[in-house]
Amino acid sequence: MTTVAAYAAPAPKAPLERTTIERRPVGDHDVLIDIKFAGICHSDIHQARDGWSEGIFPMVPGHEIAGVVTEVGPEVTKFSVGDRVGVGCMVDSCRECDNCKAGLEPYCTGGGPVLTYNDKDKEGEPTYGGYSEQIVVGEDFVVRIPDGLGLDVAAPLLCAGITTYSPLRHWGVGPGKKVAVVGLGGLGHVGVKLAHAMGAEVTVLSQSLRKKDDGLRLGADHYYATSDPETFEKLAGTFDVILNTVSAPLDFAAYMSLLRLDGAMVNVGLPEEPVQVTLQSIFGNRRNLTTSNIGGIPETQEMLDFCAEHGVGAEIELIGAGEINDAYERVTASDVRYRFVIDAATI
Amino acid sequence: MTTVAAYAAPAPKAPLERTTIERRPVGDHDVLIDIKFAGICHSDIHQARDGWSEGIFPMVPGHEIAGVVTEVGPEVTKFSVGDRVGVGCMVDSCRECDNCKAGLEPYCTGGGPVLTYNDKDKEGEPTYGGYSEQIVVGEDFVVRIPDGLGLDVAAPLLCAGITTYSPLRHWGVGPGKKVAVVGLGGLGHVGVKLAHAMGAEVTVLSQSLRKKDDGLRLGADHYYATSDPETFEKLAGTFDVILNTVSAPLDFAAYMSLLRLDGAMVNVGLPEEPVQVTLQSIFGNRRNLTTSNIGGIPETQEMLDFCAEHGVGAEIELIGAGEINDAYERVTASDVRYRFVIDAATI
Repeated sequence: MTTVAAYAAPAPKAPLERTTIERRPVGDHDVLIDIKFAGICHSDIHQARDGWSEGIFPMVPGHEIAGVVTEVGPEVTKFSVGDRVGVGCMVDSCRECDNCKAGLEPYCTGGGPVLTYNDKDKEGEPTYGGYSEQIVVGEDFVVRIPDGLGLDVAAPLLCAGITTYSPLRHWGVGPGKKVAVVGLGGLGHVGVKLAHAMGAEVTVLSQSLRKKDDGLRLGADHYYATSDPETFEKLAGTFDVILNTVSAPLDFAAYMSLLRLDGAMVNVGLPEEPVQVTLQSIFGNRRNLTTSNIGGIPETQEMLDFCAEHGVGAEIELIGAGEINDAYERVTASDVRYRFVIDAATI
Repeated sequence: MTTVAAYAAPAPKAPLERTTIERRPVGDHDVLIDIKFAGICHSDIHQARDGWSEGIFPMVPGHEIAGVVTEVGPEVTKFSVGDRVGVGCMVDSCRECDNCKAGLEPYCTGGGPVLTYNDKDKEGEPTYGGYSEQIVVGEDFVVRIPDGLGLDVAAPLLCAGITTYSPLRHWGVGPGKKVAVVGLGGLGHVGVKLAHAMGAEVTVLSQSLRKKDDGLRLGADHYYATSDPETFEKLAGTFDVILNTVSAPLDFAAYMSLLRLDGAMVNVGLPEEPVQVTLQSIFGNRRNLTTSNIGGIPETQEMLDFCAEHGVGAEIELIGAGEINDAYERVTASDVRYRFVIDAATI
């Protein structure tokens, strides 16, 4: 066991504070990673504040991890000391079900994946995330960050990147396709960059036009305010894919009406309340209301390679670990452009 | 113009009564059809009773039409006098939009298809449906009923058949797939036969086990009562496709939970109330909530050919035209196994 410094929420809703945690010894198939950067995902805040379910405390959040390999177990074949690597939302899964074998670990039917934090591993030990100096992960849940992609702007891709990349690919986004991204936040801004890099015509649907200049700079072709009812009239039947990154309840019927034949509204945020939608709003165009859950490990590697090739990284505000609690307040107030990333050297 | 006998609802909610209507002269591209049989679809009752929208009265319902060609216009190339033919829910469309050109006329963006009744044609004349002796239809909206498929059991396929066939095909139903059909009524019983003929493993989900013997006889491999909560526990994550033929509001989250990865719940009934569903119930398995709207003309022909090849026809109760109002009451009370078909000789 190795003792490493970390930032943890000692109890639900308590501010995060500096502490130490134990990392397991490097096993045969394990990689020890010196964490360089860790992104702050909105779901970190949900969980540290116990918005979703009963959390495991103390909790070290962080599932957007970028770092460098400093030790490998004797059976490790994919990584060497010095490799630039990332870890996302999962650190293990059953590895035996059809979905795991197909590289779709988020959909593991053998009990679900082991999450990077706020979960228990196969030995029943709590998992601790990326707001820490080091992490030990089995090599099969580690991905390579290509040269040319900065570790700081790559970190958020491990959640925000794959969460938006996977549904865009699944629904065939590419040249000739029209994509709307709902919400220009941590996920949405990466979704805009990715859809643009894939060759699609990209529209941002945001509550107001406040971030319009940013949206167009990030790669959007069009930018509409959803507070303006004319937006929904004008864009009726337009989109092949609507990528909804907003967790707040929306008027789903109104958004569904924006889809063309066989279009899909993919929700990657999860409102806690039931969604109301009329089947009439889906009916006319054989539309799909669906979701997407992160993405598998092979697709995460594919996404990072795609991002390196197309120069796609997250837009970040780099902070010291002492600023985490302030950053949480700002994320909650939607006051971040577009992702806080913790410089792990300050932990 | 030709005067023909028909059964019409003179006003909303009024009983249907015998009357006469005018059919247009046979145009260059038209086919005159001697109607032999007309199915009674639940939507006939909705519209005759004005449940959906402002109807056009007097209304001659009927969009499940089987008959024989008795005259063709000079430019007609597809049909000859004596051909056994069918007409379904549509008798025209813009023919120019991308969807029409792709044979997806129900999704016509040029104003939508012209419906077989309770609509106006391009000349602004009201359309009258199949509860009549004859009908004149442009040949592009007429399909051939193959030899070996009885006209009586074929009639309901023109709506109930294509409405279930199209989504089963669209969602890739075939050997190795598990399909649930919700509701064993006019649409559901054809859905069971079709999914079985496509080689899928078929489960009926019905409120009670009352029709279980029928369901198994029609081709279902399994039959469960949805009134039993254990059904939803036992079948969680099972199906590739759920074909929902029920228009009444359901607990959609419960049904969505029965889908496996990438599964789709396709709704072909349309409850008038908004549907409530939790995105959580969709999330775990990248499930799809979707709909399907009849099917295009080429696919309708494909469906009829498939039915002839596999010996699939509707289960019908043949009635005289004088029994239409009684039949409406029995359909509303779910007291029909499984489709009333009017013998048009009695009109």
